[in-house]
Amino acid sequence: MDLTPSDRAREIARKLHRFMRDEVEPVEPEWHRQMAALDDPWQVLPVIDELKEKARSLGLWNLFLPDEEFGAGLSVLDYAPLAERMGRSFIAPEIFNCNAPDSGNMEVLYHYGSQEQKDQWLAPLLKGRMRSAFCMTEPEVASSDATNMQATATIEGDEVVLNGRKWWSTGIGHPHCKVVIFMGLTDPEADRHHRHSMVLAPLDTPGIKVERMLMAMNMLDAPYGHGEVTFDNVRLPKSAIIAGPGKGFEIAQGRLGPGRIHHCMRLIGLAEHALELACRRGLERQAFGRQLVKLGGNAERIAEARIAIEQARLLVLKAAWCLDHKGIVRSMSEVSQIKVAVPAMAQKVVDMAIQLHGGAGLSEDFPLAAAWTAARSLRLADGPDEVHRGLVARFELGKYRS
Amino acid sequence: MDLTPSDRAREIARKLHRFMRDEVEPVEPEWHRQMAALDDPWQVLPVIDELKEKARSLGLWNLFLPDEEFGAGLSVLDYAPLAERMGRSFIAPEIFNCNAPDSGNMEVLYHYGSQEQKDQWLAPLLKGRMRSAFCMTEPEVASSDATNMQATATIEGDEVVLNGRKWWSTGIGHPHCKVVIFMGLTDPEADRHHRHSMVLAPLDTPGIKVERMLMAMNMLDAPYGHGEVTFDNVRLPKSAIIAGPGKGFEIAQGRLGPGRIHHCMRLIGLAEHALELACRRGLERQAFGRQLVKLGGNAERIAEARIAIEQARLLVLKAAWCLDHKGIVRSMSEVSQIKVAVPAMAQKVVDMAIQLHGGAGLSEDFPLAAAWTAARSLRLADGPDEVHRGLVARFELGKYRS
Amino acid sequence: MDLTPSDRAREIARKLHRFMRDEVEPVEPEWHRQMAALDDPWQVLPVIDELKEKARSLGLWNLFLPDEEFGAGLSVLDYAPLAERMGRSFIAPEIFNCNAPDSGNMEVLYHYGSQEQKDQWLAPLLKGRMRSAFCMTEPEVASSDATNMQATATIEGDEVVLNGRKWWSTGIGHPHCKVVIFMGLTDPEADRHHRHSMVLAPLDTPGIKVERMLMAMNMLDAPYGHGEVTFDNVRLPKSAIIAGPGKGFEIAQGRLGPGRIHHCMRLIGLAEHALELACRRGLERQAFGRQLVKLGGNAERIAEARIAIEQARLLVLKAAWCLDHKGIVRSMSEVSQIKVAVPAMAQKVVDMAIQLHGGAGLSEDFPLAAAWTAARSLRLADGPDEVHRGLVARFELGKYRS
Amino acid sequence: MDLTPSDRAREIARKLHRFMRDEVEPVEPEWHRQMAALDDPWQVLPVIDELKEKARSLGLWNLFLPDEEFGAGLSVLDYAPLAERMGRSFIAPEIFNCNAPDSGNMEVLYHYGSQEQKDQWLAPLLKGRMRSAFCMTEPEVASSDATNMQATATIEGDEVVLNGRKWWSTGIGHPHCKVVIFMGLTDPEADRHHRHSMVLAPLDTPGIKVERMLMAMNMLDAPYGHGEVTFDNVRLPKSAIIAGPGKGFEIAQGRLGPGRIHHCMRLIGLAEHALELACRRGLERQAFGRQLVKLGGNAERIAEARIAIEQARLLVLKAAWCLDHKGIVRSMSEVSQIKVAVPAMAQKVVDMAIQLHGGAGLSEDFPLAAAWTAARSLRLADGPDEVHRGLVARFELGKYRS
Repeated sequence: MDLTPSDRAREIARKLHRFMRDEVEPVEPEWHRQMAALDDPWQVLPVIDELKEKARSLGLWNLFLPDEEFGAGLSVLDYAPLAERMGRSFIAPEIFNCNAPDSGNMEVLYHYGSQEQKDQWLAPLLKGRMRSAFCMTEPEVASSDATNMQATATIEGDEVVLNGRKWWSTGIGHPHCKVVIFMGLTDPEADRHHRHSMVLAPLDTPGIKVERMLMAMNMLDAPYGHGEVTFDNVRLPKSAIIAGPGKGFEIAQGRLGPGRIHHCMRLIGLAEHALELACRRGLERQAFGRQLVKLGGNAERIAEARIAIEQARLLVLKAAWCLDHKGIVRSMSEVSQIKVAVPAMAQKVVDMAIQLHGGAGLSEDFPLAAAWTAARSLRLADGPDEVHRGLVARFELGKYRS
Repeated sequence: MDLTPSDRAREIARKLHRFMRDEVEPVEPEWHRQMAALDDPWQVLPVIDELKEKARSLGLWNLFLPDEEFGAGLSVLDYAPLAERMGRSFIAPEIFNCNAPDSGNMEVLYHYGSQEQKDQWLAPLLKGRMRSAFCMTEPEVASSDATNMQATATIEGDEVVLNGRKWWSTGIGHPHCKVVIFMGLTDPEADRHHRHSMVLAPLDTPGIKVERMLMAMNMLDAPYGHGEVTFDNVRLPKSAIIAGPGKGFEIAQGRLGPGRIHHCMRLIGLAEHALELACRRGLERQAFGRQLVKLGGNAERIAEARIAIEQARLLVLKAAWCLDHKGIVRSMSEVSQIKVAVPAMAQKVVDMAIQLHGGAGLSEDFPLAAAWTAARSLRLADGPDEVHRGLVARFELGKYRS
Repeated sequence: MDLTPSDRAREIARKLHRFMRDEVEPVEPEWHRQMAALDDPWQVLPVIDELKEKARSLGLWNLFLPDEEFGAGLSVLDYAPLAERMGRSFIAPEIFNCNAPDSGNMEVLYHYGSQEQKDQWLAPLLKGRMRSAFCMTEPEVASSDATNMQATATIEGDEVVLNGRKWWSTGIGHPHCKVVIFMGLTDPEADRHHRHSMVLAPLDTPGIKVERMLMAMNMLDAPYGHGEVTFDNVRLPKSAIIAGPGKGFEIAQGRLGPGRIHHCMRLIGLAEHALELACRRGLERQAFGRQLVKLGGNAERIAEARIAIEQARLLVLKAAWCLDHKGIVRSMSEVSQIKVAVPAMAQKVVDMAIQLHGGAGLSEDFPLAAAWTAARSLRLADGPDEVHRGLVARFELGKYRS
Repeated sequence: MDLTPSDRAREIARKLHRFMRDEVEPVEPEWHRQMAALDDPWQVLPVIDELKEKARSLGLWNLFLPDEEFGAGLSVLDYAPLAERMGRSFIAPEIFNCNAPDSGNMEVLYHYGSQEQKDQWLAPLLKGRMRSAFCMTEPEVASSDATNMQATATIEGDEVVLNGRKWWSTGIGHPHCKVVIFMGLTDPEADRHHRHSMVLAPLDTPGIKVERMLMAMNMLDAPYGHGEVTFDNVRLPKSAIIAGPGKGFEIAQGRLGPGRIHHCMRLIGLAEHALELACRRGLERQAFGRQLVKLGGNAERIAEARIAIEQARLLVLKAAWCLDHKGIVRSMSEVSQIKVAVPAMAQKVVDMAIQLHGGAGLSEDFPLAAAWTAARSLRLADGPDEVHRGLVARFELGKYRS
């Protein structure tokens, strides 16, 4: 199990690091200030488009996609340090066209899309000219159990008709969001893994309505946002179904693996950033005549954070290696393991960093409140901890079942 | 140590409960919706004034103040269940004129104010016609160590001149906030407990400027808010000093004891509310064919929450009893104990409740995100956990020092 | 809820404290050394008998028993500080005739025994001339579920015939142990709460064999010990059944309530003792030029221990108060709450104290290893944490079930 | 960072696994029973010598030593899975001549010993015909701070004279223990890293007395044991000093790195074993009509254990890789990281396994009580957690110090 990235990935990592250090990080505080001052935050500031252009021209683009033609052709393992580096910034993922949910949606289209679907949606997404959302979770049921899903994607003749209410449709607030991938029940009689379909629905199709933008722990996450969306007799040609009716579950499984691992990679970077901030603050400030890091258990907590991050990163790298070498189906436990371990680790490290900053840690002067929210949300997004623990346990116990 | 409230307190508790159930809780969701829709959230909705009027007419007013003339004449212990009941609601404390920081400021004026100060400020505060703020924490230094304080309250002839920058001045955003209590260094040569003064500064005094309203974990907490405030050569008559120059430290100590215990009492109610929501949600929703509370470790976590709340409440009641029977100086360890234990407990219980709610728990549809923020903030406000642990340890080790 | 002990209990507490300080604690280290040096540890050292005699003559005897004639006539709440004081010592409970399982067995006989049973067994137990054991847990099944019980107490004419294998029969190694209370299945057809009987079986009855003495975390706990015992067609007159056939479950429930609370009371004392040792060691020893208590997070951990103990004690007192005022059936959640909270707290506090002692903490030079074992064992004895959490959750959720 | 063992190491791993499975594990329960039955446990049962002979003849010998002539010539990383496999058994390390403290002592002699010292001591140790102890920790001072050391190794003419009291001299109870490595203060005037010397002292030298064998959490760990040893004017030729006077600190640092990592590798195996036992027990036993693993939070706890073990193993492998590629001095943080993380992880996993076993988990019927003790002890042995956290924090903060 060689966890070293390839030479090419390391070359890209160096370039990415310089770009982040010289171009992205210097402008990020101002971006946050400008966004906060907007009356309508659902817009893209010009600096983002400029940075996207620069990043693309440098080849720092679609790094997540293993395909050499459409993406960077990197392995999942190779992508890990790049995603980690991006994870230190709120705006970086979009700048490199590597942000969720677009990256996952692009993967879906890449793997399962028809040529027509690819031409229409994948191409502009790859160019970063369009954004997309993913409509799976529902407000009325416990969505951790996919069989609870109430939304329907009914075949009627040559059409597929979408009905239902979805929420936590991330990215749907973005002004460039033009299409969603909708998951709904097509055939209730089929076995439980072949009942659902995924459908590409242009956002301006009659019957689709973004009811509101949700707040996650009081944050709108503009200009991306998380929408609650209703689908009321939304009619589309059957060709809008991805990979044909009944393939929803299979696609979801394939989609969520890389999506989860990308989230975890970014959280490693986010935790590293929080730890760095904690160290710097703890060295700068004094109380009772000593640096904060010399007071009480602060140094021990910094050590615990370092130890926790190291372990979590290694587990992410192992899961990435497994995805590369064994495929998603045989890496399910590994992916669930990081999905449990990494957000909890990040939440704890950020909480420690907040505490070391005092009141400033709670404020908008530091990225810690937003970082905490990102980590906390990911203990629910893409499956709650409890469901992933259940899956890890199932695999573990399976070793001993006769 | 009899922890039973007096008959009178129980009578008030019943009345308060009915008022909360019938008048406050039914309107609270709508209040949140209206506030969220305001362009300028720094205003008081009419419903609040109506409820204040009703509460006052029922005698549910100034319940925190032990004085029988000005307040309800209840002991700290008697007040505990009342504050707990209020703690289930974001708006309740103001409705009963029992909200921080006004309650603490009123106590300061009650105990230390001159007759003139009482007439001018205490009277309207007790009537709920005015609001106040408390300006102690500073952005440039670790304020957990009071000797770090940089703001000054310099005596010049008949005047006291205030200079410095404060933040986390809670309540300063409220349209009725008219006065702040400012703490600053008066005599750097005095011993460390007699260097500081507290000064009453009308908010419209020249030289006082609210620079911005801070967000705490992304929440503005409007219409109360947390301000960053500069004091630039703010000149006031010496009579604005509370209890005379050099008394700041003594007053702060007296003020913070009850303030901390009131916060903890409310957090017990907040945690109870979160646990109730968790139970209800866990019973209502199903996944994998079973109620959520029957899945995995959910029931065990509910039990842990119940056990944690019970212990925390008892510790708060004990601290209240100590304050009543031994005074603040001999209850310092007890107050610090609850200041450490209760916010951490509440944070954990609310986090569990969020998790059981799934995505809804993060959203504004439930009061959990705001509850979490309240609990988390109190691990820093009025002294970070670490400082209070240090104080508890000092008392503990003091038993064995020769 | 007045948690103050009665004047009489406080008077006894003072006497008990002096006796512990002057008579018990000075001899305890030597007792441990002598016991460790014995080839056959299943014997009572003379000092124990002497101390028992003294304690009895001072009225420090059977303090646990609420009956004024047979015991001290104290309420459960009154007994709490006494049991806590005893809990600082390994040998104290026996010296005051308040040790498990005899105290529980005496309560069973007191409440449910026939006059004949009382004369034969309760009288000598109350005098401390005999010891007893309790045979409930079985090695072959998960005994946390009482319906798993395989041992039988079959009625055959005028006799009851005992068969089965029991273990963790505490106290059965004591040379004065003469009788056991055996629980077995009598009527599998009855409803699940009326299937079992409790039978008094003299230890020398043919068919009873102590197969071995178990070690608990490597400790024999001599001279008390934990036995594995087989019952092979043990025939006894029907009059040996306590309260008649089918009453086993009811008696068990009544027995275990006070038993659990007594264990928890003692663990509070044990944790206090560990904290005291930690403080003293941390003040005495130096490393890197500072007292251990000034290094890293040590002081914070001492504060956390103090806070945890305070909360646990208050919860125990509340449960005791509930038992006194509401009876065992309506205090089931409270008893389960302390059964979960207190051993876990004690385990953690002792672990901290061990750590602060360095290698000495692991050794027999300090009572910490034994204390840890006592706390850890009680997370399983009298019902594992998980079962008690389940019960607490059931009560909690019951509030919201329609 | 390729964490794959070499082909040769994998070949050895297969052989080792077969040997453990077929030869060691089948006899281990009987070995424990026989040892427990001995009046004098300070002896080697014949089965151990037989197994050592077999292991040696199969080349499963001195696997820890990187030297190809004297040992197996494996890298630290290569050794990791082998040590992990041994760690599932209490007796395995000695059978493969890989047990502490002999392995560490052999490394000291290998790296620092004179030819004479190698001939006299290293040769028989490598053959497994002799055992040794390491005398560093002292009872009278906090030995976590090496500068506290009170024992002396004074140069007097051609002799070195040892005085002092040591304890936790592991392995000194073994009947084949013939020599100890003693560390003492030689030159108090030298800088703090050149004051101490390490001296080889034959155990039968006049003036050396094993005062007693200590118990660690109630276990003697016979026939190895942990001794308290006095050195009273023990006179040896200067040639007994390893690498010359003043080299003690340097040698200790070099010795403890691999020693700590070996302990951690074995604890991974120990934790895996505990998790396997927990899974098997949880599948076999039933309560309330369901397998234990289906009750409450048990499955979630099994998942947490799997996740914790995976992370800890990866961190150990990383530390091993660092030792191989960067040397001990540049791997100090990594070694301290695992020293903190792994014993705590193992302690927690074993505690969970004990809980799932019920009373049986505490007993000698399962290796869990001994496993817990091993894990717990290692939070103190070779440096307490707190000291290692301090070192990790120092490295972390060093990144930001100017």
